[in-house]
Amino acid sequence: MKLLNPAELEAALRDIGARRYHRLHPFHGLLHGGQCSKGQVQAWALNRYYYQAMIPIKDASLIARCEDQAVRREWRSRLVDHDGEHEGDGGIARWLKLTDGLGLERDYVTSLRGLLPGTRFAVEAYVRFVREKTLLEAIASSLTEMFSPVIIGERMAGMLANYDFISRETMSYFDKRPPQAQRDADFALGYVKKNARTPEQQQLVLAALEFKCSVLWSMLDALHHAYVDPGEVPPGAFVPAD
Amino acid sequence: MKLLNPAELEAALRDIGARRYHRLHPFHGLLHGGQCSKGQVQAWALNRYYYQAMIPIKDASLIARCEDQAVRREWRSRLVDHDGEHEGDGGIARWLKLTDGLGLERDYVTSLRGLLPGTRFAVEAYVRFVREKTLLEAIASSLTEMFSPVIIGERMAGMLANYDFISRETMSYFDKRPPQAQRDADFALGYVKKNARTPEQQQLVLAALEFKCSVLWSMLDALHHAYVDPGEVPPGAFVPAD
Repeated sequence: MKLLNPAELEAALRDIGARRYHRLHPFHGLLHGGQCSKGQVQAWALNRYYYQAMIPIKDASLIARCEDQAVRREWRSRLVDHDGEHEGDGGIARWLKLTDGLGLERDYVTSLRGLLPGTRFAVEAYVRFVREKTLLEAIASSLTEMFSPVIIGERMAGMLANYDFISRETMSYFDKRPPQAQRDADFALGYVKKNARTPEQQQLVLAALEFKCSVLWSMLDALHHAYVDPGEVPPGAFVPAD
Repeated sequence: MKLLNPAELEAALRDIGARRYHRLHPFHGLLHGGQCSKGQVQAWALNRYYYQAMIPIKDASLIARCEDQAVRREWRSRLVDHDGEHEGDGGIARWLKLTDGLGLERDYVTSLRGLLPGTRFAVEAYVRFVREKTLLEAIASSLTEMFSPVIIGERMAGMLANYDFISRETMSYFDKRPPQAQRDADFALGYVKKNARTPEQQQLVLAALEFKCSVLWSMLDALHHAYVDPGEVPPGAFVPAD
C-alpha cells in the first residue's frame, strides 16, 4: 500500500464507481430500457422506498457520532432534503408520489410488509456500517452520490420514454436529486481527500465505497432474482398483479 | 398504577420539576446569588460546556432512531439551535463566548481536559439513555426544558447583578434559549401526553424526567464537591487560579 495523493485517491474512487456502481446492474438495463413490466417497476419502487425511508435515519446516525460541528452542520442539509420542511415535502414524500403513481397503496408501501428480505438486510447493513465504522468510513460510504447524477439522467430519460404509466410528475424525486447529490458528493469527496492521510485510511475509504456499491447492487440482485429471473418471489413479499 | 388523563400527567411532570429540578441545587443558590468566586463560575461554565457540546449528539441520536418523519422534522430544529447555521452561530458557539468572557482558553475548554469525571459520566449517561431507551422515554427525558425559562431568568438577573466579570454579551446564550426551550418543551410535552397511553408508559415518562433531573443534579453535586465544599478537585480536573 502506498500513500495516494488526493487526485490519485479520487481517481481510485471513480474507478470503483466505474466497475461496481449499480448503474451496471442488468436490472437497471431492463428498467431504463423499457423492458420491465409495470409489476416489476412497482417492485423496484416499493423496495427502494425502504432505502429512501432509512436515509435520514442513516444521516442522523452519522451526525449523532460526529464531534465536528462543521460536518454536523453540513450533514444536516441531508435531513432537510429527505424529510423536507413540512408534511408532504422532501425526498421521501416525493418517492411516495412515485409509488402512488404506480398504483401502489401508500399504507402498504410504508408498512414495509411487501419488502424483499434482501432489501431489508442490505439497507440495515448500510445503517449499521454508518453507526459502527469510523466517521471517515461512514462519510466515504456516501460517495456513491458521485455517480448518481448520471444514472438519474439515464433513468429519467429512459423511463419517461418507455413507460406510459410513468410521468414527469411521478418522477419528481429524480428532478430534485442531482444538484443535492452533487453538493453532498463534493463535500464528502473533499472530506475524505483531506482526512484520509495514511495508506491504511485510504484503503478504508476505498473499501467503504466498495461496501456501499455492494449494498445497492445486492438490492437489485434481490429484485432481479424475485421478479425477473427465475421470478421466485419469497414468501410474504410483494406479488405483482400483472 | 392508574391511567392519568393528560392534565394529570402534566401535573405529575410539573411536580417532579418542583421537587427535583436543579434550580433547587445549593450550587445554583451560590451561583445566582453572587457567592461564587470567579474560579467557581469558571468551573461551572467549563463543565457545563460538555453538556452543551453533547446536546446535538444527543438530539441527532434521537432523530437516528425515530421512524416518525414529523417528529424527526420537529427535532431537527434543536440541531439548528445548537450547531447554528454557520461557524460561530448557535448555542455551542454562544456558550464559548461565556467561557471566553470568563478568561478560559478556548482550546482548553473544548479539549475537555479539565472536566470533572462526574460531569462526563452524567452527560454520557444522558446520551446513552436517549440512544437505548424507548423513543417515548428519550423524548420525555428532554422535558426539563419545561422548567428552564424560570431558571434562566433567575440566572441572567442574578449573575448580571452580582459579578463584575459577567456581561450581557457573555451571557448571550441565555438570551436566546427561553423561546427555543419553550417551543421544544411544548412539543415534547404534547408528544408524551398523546403517546403515553398506558399506566406503564406514563410511569416510564415520569421516570425519564426524574432520570434527567438526576443528570443535571449530579453535575452540580460534582461541581459543589470539587469547588465549594470541601473543595477537593479530582486529579487532572480544572484548578481555578483564585
